[in-house]
Amino acid sequence: MARGEVGVVATPFTFFVHGLGVIAAVLVLVWCIYFRGGLAFSSSNKSLIFNIHPVLMLIGFVFVASEAILAYRILPGTKEVRKIIHLSLHFIALVLGIVGIYAAFKYHNESGIVNLYSLHSWIGLGTICLFGIQWLIGLVTFFYPGGSQTVKATILPWHVIFGLFVYILALATAELGFLEKLTFLENSGLDKYGSEALLVNFTALVVVFLGAFVILSAVLPTQREPQGYAPIAED
Amino acid sequence: MARGEVGVVATPFTFFVHGLGVIAAVLVLVWCIYFRGGLAFSSSNKSLIFNIHPVLMLIGFVFVASEAILAYRILPGTKEVRKIIHLSLHFIALVLGIVGIYAAFKYHNESGIVNLYSLHSWIGLGTICLFGIQWLIGLVTFFYPGGSQTVKATILPWHVIFGLFVYILALATAELGFLEKLTFLENSGLDKYGSEALLVNFTALVVVFLGAFVILSAVLPTQREPQGYAPIAED
Repeated sequence: MARGEVGVVATPFTFFVHGLGVIAAVLVLVWCIYFRGGLAFSSSNKSLIFNIHPVLMLIGFVFVASEAILAYRILPGTKEVRKIIHLSLHFIALVLGIVGIYAAFKYHNESGIVNLYSLHSWIGLGTICLFGIQWLIGLVTFFYPGGSQTVKATILPWHVIFGLFVYILALATAELGFLEKLTFLENSGLDKYGSEALLVNFTALVVVFLGAFVILSAVLPTQREPQGYAPIAED
Repeated sequence: MARGEVGVVATPFTFFVHGLGVIAAVLVLVWCIYFRGGLAFSSSNKSLIFNIHPVLMLIGFVFVASEAILAYRILPGTKEVRKIIHLSLHFIALVLGIVGIYAAFKYHNESGIVNLYSLHSWIGLGTICLFGIQWLIGLVTFFYPGGSQTVKATILPWHVIFGLFVYILALATAELGFLEKLTFLENSGLDKYGSEALLVNFTALVVVFLGAFVILSAVLPTQREPQGYAPIAED
């Protein structure tokens, strides 16, 4: 994508990412706690179990994963330290994502709703499986036991492309989730132009911008490189 | 995105794009004609007006736009010819997209359904506006009157990045649309695991793969370049 040609560096975009991530996290908490009654893993009010799902998926699987992608671009410290942070943040994202998906199944099962019929669930489950595969391949190739320099150099561009693909799928799944839940609520009588509907749609828009800035941050160079194109170090 | 490093060229992926595009087009026609009763711009059966919308958006705005993106990567002929094809196909996509959106508004208005409340409509309308802006900037920068070589070289990488961003938004909007329409139908009694529901979800999956292969085709080099990295020609 013509990394070296763009006369703009990634750093300014990374500030937008942190800011938009915090805004999205606050908005999803306002939605689930203020409008939807709060969060609970066990409750006779099954909606509170559902509410765990958007909170963990957005804050855990999207926001933490976004920060993991940025870790290589913005953190100081040695490459080894940044690699461990990248790997650890993605692991946290994966675990929170799995717990979040578990909450959705638990809500369905305790409420007598069938599982896995919607596009959101299909793409979402595919996404987290691909994410897990990507994480494992990254672990064994770049961390432990680690491939040879040749193997690392061959895998790295595919790791970046496939990683961004899975990240875009995660964003798309989030958008599908916002739309699906809001459609259910509107079919149950929620005002289509009420404050809750607008809040959810604005949260979804913030997530689109968050994703765009993360991807820009990932594909733009970290600093001006007057001596020409420099790929991501492949260690 | 480390174009030069990936030891794989774009050409094989472009065949998947044509194939998946045809499959998606057939599936959406089967859905709208066989399952949903056909297409009409004027009808007392307002659903037939709606059916114009997914057909034109998918075949016009997604598939034709996909082929437009590929035009630079696969077509023979001079750069000037490929540029005109790229520009013309995107123009066709834009026009079909506008007619497709008009059909959705016409359906809403004649059926007494409010407009522009859903995330699908918000992101969709934003997408086609950004698409139009991108097309106009492309026209005046690269075609007529055309910028200087320096301006072209500066704009080109942003044209590619922003173009892929808008394309991803179009794909996401399509996914939101499939989910939204199917959710409405399921709320009105359609079997969640019936053949129509599965058909729509599979069509949506085909669109995800189509998009992934288009983006791969756009970011991978067109041929092995043993003498190192070569950006897209910026004429």
